Amino acid sequence: MRKKGKEKAKQIETVIRIAVDAMGGDWAPREVVKGAVEAAHEINAEIVLVGQQEIIEKELIHYNLDGIKLTIHQAEDTINMDDDPVRAIRRKPDSSIVVGMNLVKSGAATAFVSGGSTGAVTAAALLILGRKKHIERPALAITFESTNGPVLFLDVGANADCKPEHLVQFAQMGNVYMQKIFNIAEPRIGLLSNGEEAKKGHKLARSAYPLLEKTGLNFIGNIEGHGFLKGSADVVVTDGFTGNVVIKLCEGFGEVFADIIGQSSNGNTIRTKAKGRVLNHTPGALLLGVNGNVVKTHGSSDSTAINQTIHVAERMIKQKVLETIGT
Amino acid sequence: MRKKGKEKAKQIETVIRIAVDAMGGDWAPREVVKGAVEAAHEINAEIVLVGQQEIIEKELIHYNLDGIKLTIHQAEDTINMDDDPVRAIRRKPDSSIVVGMNLVKSGAATAFVSGGSTGAVTAAALLILGRKKHIERPALAITFESTNGPVLFLDVGANADCKPEHLVQFAQMGNVYMQKIFNIAEPRIGLLSNGEEAKKGHKLARSAYPLLEKTGLNFIGNIEGHGFLKGSADVVVTDGFTGNVVIKLCEGFGEVFADIIGQSSNGNTIRTKAKGRVLNHTPGALLLGVNGNVVKTHGSSDSTAINQTIHVAERMIKQKVLETIGT
Repeated sequence: MRKKGKEKAKQIETVIRIAVDAMGGDWAPREVVKGAVEAAHEINAEIVLVGQQEIIEKELIHYNLDGIKLTIHQAEDTINMDDDPVRAIRRKPDSSIVVGMNLVKSGAATAFVSGGSTGAVTAAALLILGRKKHIERPALAITFESTNGPVLFLDVGANADCKPEHLVQFAQMGNVYMQKIFNIAEPRIGLLSNGEEAKKGHKLARSAYPLLEKTGLNFIGNIEGHGFLKGSADVVVTDGFTGNVVIKLCEGFGEVFADIIGQSSNGNTIRTKAKGRVLNHTPGALLLGVNGNVVKTHGSSDSTAINQTIHVAERMIKQKVLETIGT
Repeated sequence: MRKKGKEKAKQIETVIRIAVDAMGGDWAPREVVKGAVEAAHEINAEIVLVGQQEIIEKELIHYNLDGIKLTIHQAEDTINMDDDPVRAIRRKPDSSIVVGMNLVKSGAATAFVSGGSTGAVTAAALLILGRKKHIERPALAITFESTNGPVLFLDVGANADCKPEHLVQFAQMGNVYMQKIFNIAEPRIGLLSNGEEAKKGHKLARSAYPLLEKTGLNFIGNIEGHGFLKGSADVVVTDGFTGNVVIKLCEGFGEVFADIIGQSSNGNTIRTKAKGRVLNHTPGALLLGVNGNVVKTHGSSDSTAINQTIHVAERMIKQKVLETIGT
């Protein structure tokens, strides 16, 4: 009897349930629902669409749901981009972001994916899931393929204004991440700046530099734009304002480049080559430093981006990123 | 007699003399001298190489100097990247940057081009040439070709830390520049940020937003990375830290693209297409807001970049940018 119970427990544990904010983003719910259905066909996980049941059901009739695990979890309210994040979390307990985050908190979901307001997702994660020990601010992190291998880049938008200590904590989280997920013994940590010399940078970067030197991490100093793209560091830290500007610029370049190569006869070859390189990163950014798996995707995400982000959430769970970063 | 005097005066006035910091940059003096000689063959101006005469002369023996106007102006000292900018300006009066700037101040040169320390060039310009009225901080500005036409982007590195008022002044300078140089009646002014909403941004951007709204300029709000590259605004303002990170990232992208494109069979076609578009900007950045023509180029500039920057200086003179921006 006991053994049977254990086996059952083990089985329950391995069920992955990804809650998806069906109301978050510019193209919600249509593109979110479409992307979620696609993901449900591709990965071995249950997708829980969080939002207004009636609206979601109307979207679902367009798709083949045979053989997939997909449910709806009612959330009456929606947090808008104009809402003040912290206030909205408190005033809209029935919003898809708050409800989704609570599903993670209670264990009913293993991860939460949202294309809603970055501020609201971050605030909800902080208030509902809480921070990891020694982490004052969670950071949004993306991995991109440089010409020299994967690079973890953070913060890409959770904290527009940072203190030097926050950048140090981002470096520490990034260090563990690259050690555990990519098996790099001593990840090279770089600080994004406007020059290689220690004296270069705005006040924040100049103040963070000596703190990073004292961490015992493999801090290699300032990294400029070229070095960033070429993978001169394994982890690149910056404040969420600069990180977000950079990431959106990278996406803009991807679009411009696709446009240019689209006009050429062998565009496909180059596009394929480019794809495996630096031009695309997966759209989902991991929220590192909170007690739960949270993946944020762009407000402008289409179904493909939503699908990819759900895959990112699945990897985050399978790679045990949450258990890896702090306690 | 009088008429003759006038004609003579007119003739003197039209002589363009561009002082070039022969000692500034990673590849100085070799690449600087080479680029300066090339430029002297291409434009109708006298080039004054500022630096250690003996060293410059040794470089010059490699080139054909027939029919070009090229002289040397002795400057014994050099300001290094490690030097504290303001202190170096005061302690090294015989440095190429100080000597070159003084040539502009005295009228002996019409413009000064340097690939030396950005901080030192900016500080020397402020101390020696002085600021334009109502401009607290000069800004480094570049023009790049977006898919939607030219965009003026500033500050790309003169001020790593800015106050909101500085961004407003950058916008005002950019506005006049695009009106006068590109004949745009009401240039669209954008503020680089991490979201389109007015509330988005770090403290600096959020504080600058309402000030920009009050200017009477055609302020169109926040611009993100995509909008930046696509030319959603004619002028994009940001602090010198973010601007410099962005510009170096753009250059990094150019290199990565060139690498990818180089592997394709019709690379040349695409490279040509790309060149007229967004991937390349001219390397010279105009220092706007000081009483003299100053153009800063990268420390990493090769002879081609130096040559292009001298061309930028020539255009700056011919377009009367100095007379256009403030008083």
